[in-house]
Amino acid sequence: MGSFRGHALPGTFFLVAGIWWTVKYSIWHATRRNKGIGSTRLASRASQRRLEIIESSVILFFSLVGMLAEQFGSGGPKLQLYDFVEKHWDHLHSWHHATMYLFFGLFATVSLIIHTTEAAPLALDRLMLAIAFFNEGFLFLYHLHGRSMLDVHVHLLLLYAVFGETLVAFLEIFHRGNIILELLRCTLTVVQGTWFWEVGFVLYPPRGPEWDLKDPNNMMFITMCYSWHLAFAMLIVSVLYCIVSCAVHSRLKKTPPVEMGLLKARERDPESEDELMSRIRSKAHRCGN
Amino acid sequence: MGSFRGHALPGTFFLVAGIWWTVKYSIWHATRRNKGIGSTRLASRASQRRLEIIESSVILFFSLVGMLAEQFGSGGPKLQLYDFVEKHWDHLHSWHHATMYLFFGLFATVSLIIHTTEAAPLALDRLMLAIAFFNEGFLFLYHLHGRSMLDVHVHLLLLYAVFGETLVAFLEIFHRGNIILELLRCTLTVVQGTWFWEVGFVLYPPRGPEWDLKDPNNMMFITMCYSWHLAFAMLIVSVLYCIVSCAVHSRLKKTPPVEMGLLKARERDPESEDELMSRIRSKAHRCGN
Amino acid sequence: MGSFRGHALPGTFFLVAGIWWTVKYSIWHATRRNKGIGSTRLASRASQRRLEIIESSVILFFSLVGMLAEQFGSGGPKLQLYDFVEKHWDHLHSWHHATMYLFFGLFATVSLIIHTTEAAPLALDRLMLAIAFFNEGFLFLYHLHGRSMLDVHVHLLLLYAVFGETLVAFLEIFHRGNIILELLRCTLTVVQGTWFWEVGFVLYPPRGPEWDLKDPNNMMFITMCYSWHLAFAMLIVSVLYCIVSCAVHSRLKKTPPVEMGLLKARERDPESEDELMSRIRSKAHRCGN
Amino acid sequence: MGSFRGHALPGTFFLVAGIWWTVKYSIWHATRRNKGIGSTRLASRASQRRLEIIESSVILFFSLVGMLAEQFGSGGPKLQLYDFVEKHWDHLHSWHHATMYLFFGLFATVSLIIHTTEAAPLALDRLMLAIAFFNEGFLFLYHLHGRSMLDVHVHLLLLYAVFGETLVAFLEIFHRGNIILELLRCTLTVVQGTWFWEVGFVLYPPRGPEWDLKDPNNMMFITMCYSWHLAFAMLIVSVLYCIVSCAVHSRLKKTPPVEMGLLKARERDPESEDELMSRIRSKAHRCGN
Repeated sequence: MGSFRGHALPGTFFLVAGIWWTVKYSIWHATRRNKGIGSTRLASRASQRRLEIIESSVILFFSLVGMLAEQFGSGGPKLQLYDFVEKHWDHLHSWHHATMYLFFGLFATVSLIIHTTEAAPLALDRLMLAIAFFNEGFLFLYHLHGRSMLDVHVHLLLLYAVFGETLVAFLEIFHRGNIILELLRCTLTVVQGTWFWEVGFVLYPPRGPEWDLKDPNNMMFITMCYSWHLAFAMLIVSVLYCIVSCAVHSRLKKTPPVEMGLLKARERDPESEDELMSRIRSKAHRCGN
Repeated sequence: MGSFRGHALPGTFFLVAGIWWTVKYSIWHATRRNKGIGSTRLASRASQRRLEIIESSVILFFSLVGMLAEQFGSGGPKLQLYDFVEKHWDHLHSWHHATMYLFFGLFATVSLIIHTTEAAPLALDRLMLAIAFFNEGFLFLYHLHGRSMLDVHVHLLLLYAVFGETLVAFLEIFHRGNIILELLRCTLTVVQGTWFWEVGFVLYPPRGPEWDLKDPNNMMFITMCYSWHLAFAMLIVSVLYCIVSCAVHSRLKKTPPVEMGLLKARERDPESEDELMSRIRSKAHRCGN
Repeated sequence: MGSFRGHALPGTFFLVAGIWWTVKYSIWHATRRNKGIGSTRLASRASQRRLEIIESSVILFFSLVGMLAEQFGSGGPKLQLYDFVEKHWDHLHSWHHATMYLFFGLFATVSLIIHTTEAAPLALDRLMLAIAFFNEGFLFLYHLHGRSMLDVHVHLLLLYAVFGETLVAFLEIFHRGNIILELLRCTLTVVQGTWFWEVGFVLYPPRGPEWDLKDPNNMMFITMCYSWHLAFAMLIVSVLYCIVSCAVHSRLKKTPPVEMGLLKARERDPESEDELMSRIRSKAHRCGN
Repeated sequence: MGSFRGHALPGTFFLVAGIWWTVKYSIWHATRRNKGIGSTRLASRASQRRLEIIESSVILFFSLVGMLAEQFGSGGPKLQLYDFVEKHWDHLHSWHHATMYLFFGLFATVSLIIHTTEAAPLALDRLMLAIAFFNEGFLFLYHLHGRSMLDVHVHLLLLYAVFGETLVAFLEIFHRGNIILELLRCTLTVVQGTWFWEVGFVLYPPRGPEWDLKDPNNMMFITMCYSWHLAFAMLIVSVLYCIVSCAVHSRLKKTPPVEMGLLKARERDPESEDELMSRIRSKAHRCGN
C-alpha cells in the first residue's frame, strides 16, 4: 500500500460509499417526510431491505477483493505470517491492511444476515460499523512507528474522521434514523475518501517535486487542507441532499394519491407503530425553537 | 492578527454574540413558560423565524468581512497561497483565520436556508455550529508550534471554551430548546469573547511593560484569570436572564388575555403537538426533587 | 493550605457534604418508593424546598468563611494580588483556593435563588455544581508545577473524583432524580473528603517519619489506597442508604393511611403529572431483566 | 501472578463469564421476542431472579478464592502490608490483584442483595460492575512502571477492553436490557479472557523461545493480534447467540399455547407496564430503516 495507487484505491472506495450513503439516506428521509402522498412506492420496507442486501453484498465483495489483493498482490505475504528463514514477521503492513478489510467484511456479513433473516436485532449493523471504523483507527494508531513528522501527521488527521465515524455510528445504535447523524457520517466518509487521495498526493507525488516531510510550514498547511476537505465534503453532501429531496418531492407529487390505499393494504407491516413513534420523536426534536 | 486589534475584534464579536444569544433564548424561554397569557404575540413561530434569519444574515456578513479583511488587509496574502519565488507557503496564519471565518459563514448560510425554506431538518444548524466551533479549536491546536510557554498556555485555555461549545452544540441536536444547554453555550461564548481581549492585553500590551512569557507564576495567575472570566460570564448571563424574564413577565401580564383566542386560531401551526411533547419532557426534568 | 490542617478542613467539609447528601437522597428516594402510604408528610415538596434552602445557606456560609480564611488567615494575601515592591504575584496559592471556594459559593447562591423564587429552571443547580467541581479540578491541574512526584500523584488521583463528580452532576441535568447518579455523586464526594485527609497525612505527617516522595513503591501503594478509599466510601454510602430506607419504611407503616386523603388534597401540586412520568421512566429502567 | 498460570487463571475466568453472559442474555432476549407463545415458562421473573442469585454467588465465591490465593499462595504477603525489617511495602503486586478481586466481590455482594431483597434499585448492579471494571483498569494503569516496552504494550491493549466494558456497563444504567449493549459487553469480556491467555503466552512462553520485548515489529504484530482476538470474540458471541435463539424458538413452538392463560394469570407481576414500555422503545429503535 506504500504507493500512490495504494492510497487512491481505498480513497475511491470511501468516496463512493459516502456519496451512495448520502443518496440513500436522503431518499429515505424525503419519502418519510412526504408520507401520505404515495411514498410507500418509493421506499417501502421491502425495497429498503432489498437495497440494504445489495449494498452489503457489494461491500462484502470489495472487502474480499481487498484482502486477496493485500495478500496475493505484488509484494504481498501470500498468507505467510512469519519468515522462518530470516526470523522476523513478514509483511506486517499488508497483514494490517487485510485485517482492516476483514472488519468491514464482518460488518457486511452481519448486515446481510440482519436484512435477509429476522435472527438479529436491527441496531447490530451500526455496532458492527462502529467496530469496523474503530478497528481501522486503532490499527492506524500503532502503524506509524518511526515515520517522518508529516507522514505521521497526515495519518493522525485521518483519525479525526475515523474515530468521528465510530462515535456517530455508536450513537446511531440509540438514535437510528436520525438524519443529522446519518448525514454527519456521510460527510466524514467523504472526508476520509478525499483525504486518502490527498495523502497519496503528498507522500507519493505522481509528478512534481517531493514534499519536505520535516517542514513545520507544510504541517500547518496540511492541517488547513483538512479543514478545506471537511468544507468540501459538507458541500457535496448538501448538494446531493438537496437534489434528491427535490427529485423525490416532485416525483411524489405526480403519483396519484388514489393508489395509496391499495399499496397500504398490501404493504402495511406489523411495525407501523414504530413509525408513529419515530415521527413523534423526530417532531419533538424540531420543537422549542 | 498578531496584534492587539487582531484579538480585540474577534473578542468583541463573540462577546456581542454571547449577549445577543442570552437575550434571545431568555425571551423565548420566558414566553414559553408564560404560555397561556397571550405569549404568542411576543414569540410566535413566525417572529422567531424572522429573528433567526436576521441573525444568520448578520453572522454571514461579518464572516465575509472577516475573510476579506484577513486576505486583503495590510500584510494579508491577497489570495496568494504559495510564494513561488521564495518557495514557501505564504501568510499561513491569515489563511488559517480566514478558514475559521469560513466555517462560521457556512453555519450562517445553512441556518439561513433552514429558516427561509423547509428544505433541511431544523437540528442541522446546531450541527453546523458544533462543526464551526470544532474547526476553530482544531486549527488553534495546530497553530501554536514554536511559540513561548505563556503564549501557548493562553491559547490552550481558550480551547476549553471552544471545545465546550462544540460539545454543548452537539448535545443540542438531541436536546433542542433545553434552556440549561442554551445558557451554558451563551456563557462559554461570552468567556471566549472576554478571553480574546485578555489574550490581546497579555501578548500585546497596549501600554505598560511586557509580560515575562516564561515565568511559571504568570502561568498560574493566568489560569486563575480564566476562572474569573468564567465567573464574570456567568454573572452577565444570569443578570441578563433575570432582566429579560422580569420584562417579559410584566409585559405579558398587561396583555389582555381576551386576544389569545384570536391569535391562537390564526397562528396555530401543525407542529403544536411537538410543543406539548417538549413541555411534558421539560416538566419531567423538574421532577424527582 | 500547605499544612496538615489545610487539607483536613476541606476534607471534613466534603466528608460531611457527602454523608448529608446520602441521607437526603435516600430519604427522598425511600418516600417516593413508598408513595401511597402517607409519604407526603415526610417529603412533601414544601419541606424538600425548605431543606434545599437550608443546605444552600450553609454551603454559602462556609464558602464565604473559606474565602475569608484564605485571604485574611495567617500568611494570606489580605486581598493584595500583586506585590509591587518585589514585582511578583502575591500568594497565588491562596488566591487559587479562594477562587475554588468562590465557585461553590456561586453554586449555593444560584441554588438559593432557584428554591426561594421561581425565577430559574430547576436543573440549573446541577449545572452550577458541575461547573464548581470542574473549576476545582481545572485549577488543581495547573497548580502542580514543580512539585515532587508523589505530591503531584496524590493530587492527580483526587482529580478522578473531582472530574467524576463533574460528569455525574452534568448527567443529572438530563436525569434529575436518578438515585443511581445521586448515590454515585455522594460516593465520590466522600472519596474526596477522605482523600484530602490522606493527602494531609502523606505530605504533612503530624507525627512519625516523613514519606519518601520519590519512591515508585510509595506511588504504587498510594494508588491502591485510592481504591480502598473508594471501597470504603461505597460502604459508608450503602450502610447509610440501608439505615435510612429501613427507618423511612418502618415509620411510614405506622402512619395511619387515613390522613392521606387530606394531605393529598392539600399538597397536590400542578406538577403531579411529572411524577407520573418519572415513575413510568424509572420503572422502565427496571425492566428487561 | 508473574507467571503463565497467573495469567491463564483470570483469563479462563473472564472467558467463562463472557460465554455465560452471552447465553444468559440470548435466552432472555429470545424469550422476550417470542412473548405470547408460552415464553413465561422459560424466563419468568422468578427464574431470572434465581439465575442472578446463583451467578452472583459464584462470582462472590471466586472473588474470595482469588483474594485468598493472592494473599496466602506461594510468595503471597499473608496479609502483611509493610515489611518493618527492610522498611518497604511488601508484595504490592499481590495486594493490587487482591484489590481488583475485592471490587468484583463487592459487585457480586451488591447484586446478591439487589436480587434477594427489594432494598436497592435494580440499576445499581450495573454501576457496581462499571466501578469494578474501572478499578481494574485504574490499577493496571499505575502498575506498569519500569517494565519493558512490549510488556507495557500488551497490558495497555487490555485496557481498551476493560475501559470499554466500564463505558458499556455505565450506559446500561440508562439502557438496561438493550441487547446490543449486553452483547458488546459479552464480546469485550471474551476478548479480555483470551487476551489474558495471549499475554501469558507472550511474556511467559511455556515452551519455545523467549520473545524479544523491545522489537517494534513484535509490537505491530501484537497490535494486530488484538484485532484478531476481537474478531474471534465477535464470532463466538454470534454463534452462541444464534444457537440459543434457534433453541429457544424451536422449544417455544412445541409448548402448547393453551397453558399460557394459566401461567399468565399466575405469574403476571405488577411491572408488566414496564415491559410494554420497553417493547415500544425497542421497537422504536428498529424503525427509520
